[in-house]
Amino acid sequence: MTEDNTTKKAKNSEDSVVFVGGKPFMNYVTGVVMQFTTQNAKEVVIKSRGKFISRGVDIAEVATKRFLEDTVEVSNMKIDSEEFENKEGKQVRVSTMEITVKKK
Amino acid sequence: MTEDNTTKKAKNSEDSVVFVGGKPFMNYVTGVVMQFTTQNAKEVVIKSRGKFISRGVDIAEVATKRFLEDTVEVSNMKIDSEEFENKEGKQVRVSTMEITVKKK
Repeated sequence: MTEDNTTKKAKNSEDSVVFVGGKPFMNYVTGVVMQFTTQNAKEVVIKSRGKFISRGVDIAEVATKRFLEDTVEVSNMKIDSEEFENKEGKQVRVSTMEITVKKK
Repeated sequence: MTEDNTTKKAKNSEDSVVFVGGKPFMNYVTGVVMQFTTQNAKEVVIKSRGKFISRGVDIAEVATKRFLEDTVEVSNMKIDSEEFENKEGKQVRVSTMEITVKKK
């Protein structure tokens, strides 16, 4: 938590990503909101995969419409797929989504 | 299934929406693919809500990357929320997503 500029910049660009998983829903919403309110982030990227994509959208909606209404907005969305081999050696495809939320 | 132009146009604009629900996954993928291959649709909108949003993304990814590679692409994405009162009179929020897939 040093405050010199270089560290801060690096920290901001790295930290402004929220990976969606199985923790309680509000953890993620708070995570996004705090990036803007206490970390002064300009944008936050919400990254999700597979079944967590629905959650990623929920998080973006609640953060932008309930907590940071009029302050932030969804500026970009990207969907993609990743292919990999699972433990049984079978080729598996998983969808991924990135939602960028940006200060207005 | 009349073939005069007016009916066809009306049909195309109405039919080119796929609502994602709990049917077998491939039903939806086939639905999207067939709109392009047999109905000659220029674009198809995949609409999903709540937990089905992840599926909507999967459908778009499989249709565009596995079945109609090089022919169609995701041209637009939109997320939103709907608020309504549930049976218990409680205010509930649900996320919605629209993915537009378009002929290249």
